[in-house]
Amino acid sequence: MSAQFGFEVLATSGRARRGRLALAHGTVETPAFMPVGTRAAVKGVTLDQVEALGAEIILANTYHLHVRPGDALIARAGGLHRFMQWDRSILTDSGGYQVFSLADRRTLSEEGVVFQSHLDGARLTLTPESAVDIQMRLGSDVAMMFDECPAWPATEDEAAAAMRRTVRWARRGRERFARVCDGAAPEVLRPNPGQAQFGIVQGGTHRALRDESAAGTVAVGFEGYAIGGLSVGEPADLMYEITGHTADQLPVEQPRYLMGTGTPQDLLESVARGIDLFDCVLPTRNARNGQLFTRQGPVSIKNARHAEDQQPIDPACGCPTCRRHSRAYLRHLFMAGEMAAATLNTLHNLYFYLDTMKEIRKAIEFGIFEEFKRAFLETYSRDTPLK
Amino acid sequence: MSAQFGFEVLATSGRARRGRLALAHGTVETPAFMPVGTRAAVKGVTLDQVEALGAEIILANTYHLHVRPGDALIARAGGLHRFMQWDRSILTDSGGYQVFSLADRRTLSEEGVVFQSHLDGARLTLTPESAVDIQMRLGSDVAMMFDECPAWPATEDEAAAAMRRTVRWARRGRERFARVCDGAAPEVLRPNPGQAQFGIVQGGTHRALRDESAAGTVAVGFEGYAIGGLSVGEPADLMYEITGHTADQLPVEQPRYLMGTGTPQDLLESVARGIDLFDCVLPTRNARNGQLFTRQGPVSIKNARHAEDQQPIDPACGCPTCRRHSRAYLRHLFMAGEMAAATLNTLHNLYFYLDTMKEIRKAIEFGIFEEFKRAFLETYSRDTPLK
Repeated sequence: MSAQFGFEVLATSGRARRGRLALAHGTVETPAFMPVGTRAAVKGVTLDQVEALGAEIILANTYHLHVRPGDALIARAGGLHRFMQWDRSILTDSGGYQVFSLADRRTLSEEGVVFQSHLDGARLTLTPESAVDIQMRLGSDVAMMFDECPAWPATEDEAAAAMRRTVRWARRGRERFARVCDGAAPEVLRPNPGQAQFGIVQGGTHRALRDESAAGTVAVGFEGYAIGGLSVGEPADLMYEITGHTADQLPVEQPRYLMGTGTPQDLLESVARGIDLFDCVLPTRNARNGQLFTRQGPVSIKNARHAEDQQPIDPACGCPTCRRHSRAYLRHLFMAGEMAAATLNTLHNLYFYLDTMKEIRKAIEFGIFEEFKRAFLETYSRDTPLK
Repeated sequence: MSAQFGFEVLATSGRARRGRLALAHGTVETPAFMPVGTRAAVKGVTLDQVEALGAEIILANTYHLHVRPGDALIARAGGLHRFMQWDRSILTDSGGYQVFSLADRRTLSEEGVVFQSHLDGARLTLTPESAVDIQMRLGSDVAMMFDECPAWPATEDEAAAAMRRTVRWARRGRERFARVCDGAAPEVLRPNPGQAQFGIVQGGTHRALRDESAAGTVAVGFEGYAIGGLSVGEPADLMYEITGHTADQLPVEQPRYLMGTGTPQDLLESVARGIDLFDCVLPTRNARNGQLFTRQGPVSIKNARHAEDQQPIDPACGCPTCRRHSRAYLRHLFMAGEMAAATLNTLHNLYFYLDTMKEIRKAIEFGIFEEFKRAFLETYSRDTPLK
C-alpha cells in the first residue's frame, strides 16, 4: 500500500535474517534495534547524540504523544520528523501496549479503549481507527495497528478473546488506513504519505492461538508483522519458544518485529528465530539506574568496587563514554545524582545495543550467526572481573 | 610563585580589559566566563559538550568534592583533570562560599569552619590551611584562598570582623600554599605543580572596608585577586559600585575575578569596571528551570505562546539547540519533564554566556566596549516579540 516501503532479505544464517528495510525516511539495516523515544525524546540524551550513535530508526508512542503535546499540534508542525528535527525513520507504537501497562486506568470494549489520562484524568478514547488517524497525523514511517495486549498470565479463554478482538481490530485499522491513504478522510493531516502499517499478532503463550492470530492478521495484509504480547512477565524460554513458533507463521518476505524486547540474550535468541526488529527501554532505563551493559555481562556502576577504578566501563568499547571516562568518575556522577551520569550511561548502553546489532548483522552475512551467538552468550554470562 | 602562571593585558577600552591568562592547562582569553561544575560535572551536559561550546576554564568546588568523592580519592586518580578527563583549565572555589550558603550547618571560629556535611551530617572542618591542602590534592589550576563570606545585609562591624578575619586567613592560606609548594608537606599529593592561588577581597558594601581588605590581601601577595561577598542579595547598582571601587584598588597587572556573578547585565557592567573573570550558576540553573537567555532578553520556554512556535529560541544563535530545534519542541520537552530539555536549554544558555564574552573581548580589542555595552543593554532590556 505504501509505495516507499520495501523489505529485502539479503542473507540468512540458519533462521536468522540479514535484511534491509526501505522506509519513507531512509533504509534500516536489519536486524535492527530501535531506541525508545516515547515522548519524542530518547530519555537522557539529545537527538544529536542518538544520531551520532548511528541509530537508523527510533520508536515513539501514540498514546503519550496524543496526550501531550497532541497529534494535531504535531501535524500542524509538519509531523513528528519535523517537530523533533529527526530525519531518519520513526516507528510509532499504537497505544495497544498502554492497554496493558495502564490497565487500571482504562475501560475496554469492542469499540476500543477509554483511558483516563495519566496526566490530568481527562477521558480519551483510542480505537483501531483513531490510532490510525493519530499516527497519520504524527507521520511516522511505520504505524502499528491498535491491538489488545493482555496481561500475563492469561487463561486460554482470555488470551483467545483478546487475540480474536485484535484480529477484528486489524481489519478495522487496515480499512481505516486504506481510506485515509485514498484521501477519503481529508480532515486527517498526512505529513508523511509514505507511511507503512504493521499488523500485530497476539495469542499469549498458546501456540494454537498464535497460529490463528498470524493467519488472521496476515489475511488482512500489512507491510510488516509484529509479535505482541510477549516480554510481559513470562519466562524467557517460553518467550523464545512462542517467538520462534510465531515467526514461522509469518510471510518470509516481510519484516518481523518483536515488540518490547529485550535483554542482549533476548535479542540473540530472537534473531536466531527470524526476528528483524526490536525495541526496548532496557538500555535507556537501566542506564539511568546505573546498570551498564558489556560483553562480559552487566555492570552496576554504583558498586563500591568501582570507586577508584580508572578503567572505562569496557576497554574494548568505542562509545563516547568509554573513550573518555573512567568507572571511578561515572560512579561519582551516579552517586552525586548528576544528570551527566544518566547521559553518559545511556550513551554507553545504546552504543552497546546498536553495536551488538551491527555485530549480529555481520555474523549473519558471514553465515556464522550460531557461532557468534554461542560465543557472545558464553562471554556475556561468565562471571568476570569486569563486573 | 607558580612558574606556569601569567597574565597579560592585551588591550583596554575604558576600564575594560582584554587579557590573556596563562595557566598550567593552557591559556584563557579574558574577560572569561567559567561554567560551574561544582561536583566535577557541569549540570545537564557532558564534558564533550562543554568542550565543544568552547569553554576554556570551568569551576569546581572544594567543599563539595571534599565531601564526595573526596580529595584524597581524586588525588590518587591523578587529580581532578584526570579524574574528569578535562584537559583545559579548572579553578576551584575554596569552600568559603559554603560558609555563607550553608550558614545553618556550620560553626565559625578563628581556626576555621566546622560543617555538618549536607550529605550525612558528618563533621568536617575547613581551615585556611586545609582548604589549600584539599585544592592541592584536587590539582586545580587556580586555587582560591579560604574566606569568610558574610551574609547581606551585614552591619559595618560584622562586615569588618569577617573581612579582617579573611585577611588573617589570607596570610595563613598563602603561607600554607608556599610550604606545600616548597615540598614541606610531602603528605599532600600534588598532581598539578603549576597551581596558582588567588586571594579574596571582602568588606561587604562598605568602601573603606573594601580598601582595607584589598590592601591587606595584596600585601600578602597572590597570583590574582577575587572580589567576594557580592551577588549575595544586595541591589545591582550597589554591587556595580563596590565592584568598580574594589577593582580600582587591585594591581593592574594581575587578573581580577568577581565571584558568583551574574546576569548578562552584571557581566557587562563588571567588565566595564575592570573585571576579567566570572562564574555563575545562572545559565545552567535557569536552563533547568526553562529560562533561556537571548540578546532580546530572557525567554521562558514554558510559556504557552511557544507551543506552536516553529522558530528556534534565537534565529541568530549558533548553538546546537538553536541550530536544530524549535521553541515548540523545547517547550514540549520541558512540559513533559524530559531530561533533554535541561540539556538543550543548558547548551543554549552556556553558548549565550560564552558567546557574549567573546563579543565583549572583540569589542574591547576594537576599543568600542562602551558602545557595545550600550547597544547590548538596549536590546537586552527591550520588550520584543522574542519573549
